[in-house]
Amino acid sequence: MVKSSLWTKLEGSEMNLKERMRDLCDRTKKASYSLASENTEIKNKILRTTADNILDQETRIREENKKDLDAGRKAGLSSALLDRLELTEKRIHAMAEGLRTIADLKDPVGEILHEQTRPNGLVIRKIRVPIGVICIIYESRPNVTADAAGLALKSGNAVILRGGKEAVHSNRVIAGIIRDSIQQCGSNPDLVGFVDTEDREAVKWLLQAEAFIDMVIPRGGEGLTRAVAELSRIPVLKHYNGICHVYVDRDADQNMASNIVMNAKTQRPGVCNAIETLLVDKAIAKTFLPDMIKQLEDKGVEIRGCPETKSLANHIKDATEKDWSTEYLDLILSVRVVENIEEAVKHINTFGSRHSDAIVTKNKNTADRFMKDVDSATVYVNASTRFTDGFEFGMGAEMGISTDKLHARGPVGLEELTTYKYCIVGHGQIRT
Amino acid sequence: MVKSSLWTKLEGSEMNLKERMRDLCDRTKKASYSLASENTEIKNKILRTTADNILDQETRIREENKKDLDAGRKAGLSSALLDRLELTEKRIHAMAEGLRTIADLKDPVGEILHEQTRPNGLVIRKIRVPIGVICIIYESRPNVTADAAGLALKSGNAVILRGGKEAVHSNRVIAGIIRDSIQQCGSNPDLVGFVDTEDREAVKWLLQAEAFIDMVIPRGGEGLTRAVAELSRIPVLKHYNGICHVYVDRDADQNMASNIVMNAKTQRPGVCNAIETLLVDKAIAKTFLPDMIKQLEDKGVEIRGCPETKSLANHIKDATEKDWSTEYLDLILSVRVVENIEEAVKHINTFGSRHSDAIVTKNKNTADRFMKDVDSATVYVNASTRFTDGFEFGMGAEMGISTDKLHARGPVGLEELTTYKYCIVGHGQIRT
Repeated sequence: MVKSSLWTKLEGSEMNLKERMRDLCDRTKKASYSLASENTEIKNKILRTTADNILDQETRIREENKKDLDAGRKAGLSSALLDRLELTEKRIHAMAEGLRTIADLKDPVGEILHEQTRPNGLVIRKIRVPIGVICIIYESRPNVTADAAGLALKSGNAVILRGGKEAVHSNRVIAGIIRDSIQQCGSNPDLVGFVDTEDREAVKWLLQAEAFIDMVIPRGGEGLTRAVAELSRIPVLKHYNGICHVYVDRDADQNMASNIVMNAKTQRPGVCNAIETLLVDKAIAKTFLPDMIKQLEDKGVEIRGCPETKSLANHIKDATEKDWSTEYLDLILSVRVVENIEEAVKHINTFGSRHSDAIVTKNKNTADRFMKDVDSATVYVNASTRFTDGFEFGMGAEMGISTDKLHARGPVGLEELTTYKYCIVGHGQIRT
Repeated sequence: MVKSSLWTKLEGSEMNLKERMRDLCDRTKKASYSLASENTEIKNKILRTTADNILDQETRIREENKKDLDAGRKAGLSSALLDRLELTEKRIHAMAEGLRTIADLKDPVGEILHEQTRPNGLVIRKIRVPIGVICIIYESRPNVTADAAGLALKSGNAVILRGGKEAVHSNRVIAGIIRDSIQQCGSNPDLVGFVDTEDREAVKWLLQAEAFIDMVIPRGGEGLTRAVAELSRIPVLKHYNGICHVYVDRDADQNMASNIVMNAKTQRPGVCNAIETLLVDKAIAKTFLPDMIKQLEDKGVEIRGCPETKSLANHIKDATEKDWSTEYLDLILSVRVVENIEEAVKHINTFGSRHSDAIVTKNKNTADRFMKDVDSATVYVNASTRFTDGFEFGMGAEMGISTDKLHARGPVGLEELTTYKYCIVGHGQIRT
């Protein structure tokens, strides 16, 4: 396999940090204009070649990953963090398989979103195009290096990768394989730039580099995301957290409601589309809640309740104001009895994080009202919030979830990594 | 006509600035959730009632406008600025007519952008919804108060208006009429908030109020826009300037090319979609440029040329590096001879502002390449750049132009003032 020369140049550079970052940005931006990024066949070839090379170099990847694991153990990382860091054989194969899946997805670039011919004969087409250069800032899981680069490349974007310092050896070797694979396919390896320094100043500089970078995507915990959003001059696509709700309405099928609540809370409590708060209509609280609480407690869920909830079961902790806006990511659930749907909607719009919220009801009017009034990216009727996910939405893969209102909301797949331009063809029209 | 009480409350408030801004934001956000903003009939009624009331109160508007004009004259404002400030009878009528035009436009809210039924039976609909609260920061033209509020309301958004201090009396009376008209129609006047202070700290506070405001739109010169973009923690939809180009290719119809260049430069040089730079293919420079330059000079256009251009005509000033990135907004044109289309594209992507750029050519391959490679919001083949405009694009009206890549590009009409949400209907589906 060819070792790409520009990659070596960056590694061996004696430039100072700012110069290195500028050079990295400049080369990535130039690469983003290269035709390679616009051709579906070449993009797919790059993705499949990278998958092959990742499998070929499994031993090398595991050696580099071991350096990170050893350093992590020395630094006293928690076992959860060490687990996230580890690239097992299975995970390396999944990484390669993920790239092949992305290659199989439809290329979003070039789609004509709208076309019209104006009375003066101008043909105006609104065409889907890549965004340009995307900077992805992520934490400990090194497989993000391949996933994120793969999605960015397929959507026609050049990408600058900045991983967590715990995973630096793993990320470096994977990014190197991607760059070499691009070169092997005859394209510009600078389509994937890698921030090969642990210096935090590098990130600060990148987040101000609006002349080079078009979008920033932080992938990690709330702390990372907030830090990125605060420092960035470049638009950031993100979600801070997932404070999701199920509201059980007076007209709910109560059996369905308890199934949905159990699923949304306990199936995988550590993810952003799991619920943190259960809202129950006062009209059915007495018939619904005692058994619901028992089921949850049987599954090991700690309940924190409003006074009304506490009056319906023993040994329940107080839910404080803070509970309503806490993402537990754990087997804890806050429970509140509300007067009616208005109060439920108000609670969700006040304390929620615009992520995923569900109502359980057989009443179509109530359901419509909930969908209209809840100001969240995804609103469910009679289904678990756990479905907010690129695969479940049929997108094939996702870069993450957005709780922003501008550009993209909900799961961020290939289409959400594109923008559009207007291409207008005339025959000499001038404005009068 | 009713005088809305909340309006009075804000005026008479003894709260300090921060409290007043928080109160304004809080009430606007609450209003944004009100059902009024979701019903087409009510929204249109508000727009038409406001138009009627603006005409009814023409005398009062002109009296308040006179206060601004008098103060402006005392402060020594330029005649151009005073002209922009003045609300003539014609302009007041145009303002009312503009609101009626917006009422006649199709309501974008509620449109189903995509619908699918997943294998598990979940029905996922992607539905167009208002963004929420939009803050509009504008300069001296007081008619923006009505235009911007009208577009925001029709797209279902609540709006916070902050006009220039030169126009404070005019803006206040117009915003008051809008608020009173909303109340008269039985809706919440807080849908239109007005920043009734000239204190600049108010703007700084608003630009950090991401809990209340979803989008900021600056409307004014580059200085205002840059200041807003730098201070804002909230997404800003904007264009800094319009450094637009016409590239005349070797395969151009040269007569068509000179018509397009004359139109794009001289028809209205002070607007953002007028061109600032003419790029000419070296292969035709000698046959095309001398006559083109003569035509431009005959119309009073000052030419600043590259060495190649200078060699083809007498008395032409040097174009310096700075000229390539200057928006003259005046009868000045920089001219550069380029080797080929590659160099033209590179020039545009380097020095342009991603606004509007045109190629003149009869060669379809060259045209396609230009449209693909030029990284601008609107790219033209054989037409003047002057068509980048909401009305010319059939949008009916526009809030402005965006040279950003995220959320919206090009003219910003009603659709661009919306986002989407996913509404998902199931029958008890849980994730396994």
